[in-house]
Amino acid sequence: MASVLPASNTSMRSDRNTYVGKSFVHVKNPYLDSMDEDVLYHLDLGTKTHNLPEMFGDVKFVCVGGSPNRMKAFALFMHKELRLTDSEEDIKDICAGTDRYCMYKIGPVLSISHGMGIPSISIMLHELIKLLYHARCSDVIIIRIGTSGGIGIAPGSVVITDEAVDSFFKPRFEQVILDNIVTRSTELDKELAEEIFNCSKEISNFPTLIGHTMCTYDFYEGQGRLDGALCSFSREKGLDYLKRAYNAGIRNIEMESTVFAAMCRLCGLKAAVVCVTLLNRLECDQINSPHDVLVEYQKRPQLLISKFIKQRLGLCDQTS
Amino acid sequence: MASVLPASNTSMRSDRNTYVGKSFVHVKNPYLDSMDEDVLYHLDLGTKTHNLPEMFGDVKFVCVGGSPNRMKAFALFMHKELRLTDSEEDIKDICAGTDRYCMYKIGPVLSISHGMGIPSISIMLHELIKLLYHARCSDVIIIRIGTSGGIGIAPGSVVITDEAVDSFFKPRFEQVILDNIVTRSTELDKELAEEIFNCSKEISNFPTLIGHTMCTYDFYEGQGRLDGALCSFSREKGLDYLKRAYNAGIRNIEMESTVFAAMCRLCGLKAAVVCVTLLNRLECDQINSPHDVLVEYQKRPQLLISKFIKQRLGLCDQTS
Repeated sequence: MASVLPASNTSMRSDRNTYVGKSFVHVKNPYLDSMDEDVLYHLDLGTKTHNLPEMFGDVKFVCVGGSPNRMKAFALFMHKELRLTDSEEDIKDICAGTDRYCMYKIGPVLSISHGMGIPSISIMLHELIKLLYHARCSDVIIIRIGTSGGIGIAPGSVVITDEAVDSFFKPRFEQVILDNIVTRSTELDKELAEEIFNCSKEISNFPTLIGHTMCTYDFYEGQGRLDGALCSFSREKGLDYLKRAYNAGIRNIEMESTVFAAMCRLCGLKAAVVCVTLLNRLECDQINSPHDVLVEYQKRPQLLISKFIKQRLGLCDQTS
Repeated sequence: MASVLPASNTSMRSDRNTYVGKSFVHVKNPYLDSMDEDVLYHLDLGTKTHNLPEMFGDVKFVCVGGSPNRMKAFALFMHKELRLTDSEEDIKDICAGTDRYCMYKIGPVLSISHGMGIPSISIMLHELIKLLYHARCSDVIIIRIGTSGGIGIAPGSVVITDEAVDSFFKPRFEQVILDNIVTRSTELDKELAEEIFNCSKEISNFPTLIGHTMCTYDFYEGQGRLDGALCSFSREKGLDYLKRAYNAGIRNIEMESTVFAAMCRLCGLKAAVVCVTLLNRLECDQINSPHDVLVEYQKRPQLLISKFIKQRLGLCDQTS
């Protein structure tokens, strides 16, 4: 497999990326600066129609998750936690002109939905990274807060990913570029994962662990489920696969982490993946816990990341 | 590559699939009937909580598309076209309990959103096919009405897919099952494509053609775009790829058709893909036509499929 970028590109923006000790969000695209206008189509934003530096220049934390409603709830929660002076009504969907994604800004925090699966989050990340680049953002941390299936751990556990792996348990993301398959590293920031893990210790009754996360292209057959419209393997074979995943250090399965890790790494974004598990896949396939239990589970990554952000901002914590 | 299903499964539901001359929607999963309850998690429906035969038993046409707003607009349009007696206010999102997908029922027509990309539409299709199976639906036609990038054709052209191909121009969908890659056929119903094409001839100034559709996992690098956050190839190489695609018979690019064709084929759903092109990729990468032009383009597949459905239902057409 070829290296992802020609050598000439790698130092392309070294001037911008390092001056005054700041780490700027960068793109790896030599054509972008020569474009007269950049339309971020799926976000309904653009460099001519919006003043991106003014709108987004102060962003330091980007939180992304699959569900639009959940990312709106996170925005409202952060607004409360950060005790900002503007009213709750001011928190409007910045991408209201499209229904592909939603986006909310709460002080230095951006909350964005990404839909389900690698292609959906990949489109959002391309446009988000360009947005942060056009806005000249620096020292940005990006965290995916999501839901997942657990392997061999209690439902409700929060998994902080140390390594995102594919369906073959390999820490890689395969990107098709023209006719070629390019393999990219899915390494995440280890210090950031540790820092978030340490935050979790300050919350009581908050089961949290660091482990590998498997990222699949499919929720049913691709995750060894027996309850899809299609299933061609035996119960035993499915369970064997999940047990092998457990033995390889995998503690949860979701559908976005490999491309998320790969793209953020290439563009200078410190990245973490923090997902709650909704079920233990060694015991069942269907998510059928009561609604209120699932709602409580889904708040856990939000609670943890809110604590982390407040700690980073030097705000004393009065909520937990 | 192994065959997708063991021989014992292939005739599994032959009794149900063929009696009284009807073609029933079937699942290819020997475990499903033994389940006490089937929770269609991402649709917020289930076999114990909902009377699926009563709610959906009369469905004959399922129309799917990426954007929730567009599928709502299609539902309202079909309601007008079918001249149903219930009021427009009765058209409610059946999946309102979740924000993963939206679903509307208009007489025998179901309109559902599927988000962007193969994984997202795959989750929806697994649960939709199970829904149609549980509801004992028969003789169902399913049509994806979407947007796409065109290759070598005027923006606004409607492409009816005769063959869905992957990034390597091959008519296949590769499904990871446990550790194996299973290759599935992406053949679509040729008669249905012809019938829809014939409908298009009855609408004036309505550029329509039948051609191959390429389905990618990515909107930027994976479609040869130079305007993503990452781009590692030259303008010439990107254009060469698109020209080779054109020479292979590909007329548009989107992100869902291969898995859509493969899954529908396996489960007895006659399927078609009808997408409008928003730009000509041999000329540009960015979608920057005026908003009202794009809105008009996006209505074209809806208009065509409405005409097709009315013709099938024996309703005389008074709108075009």
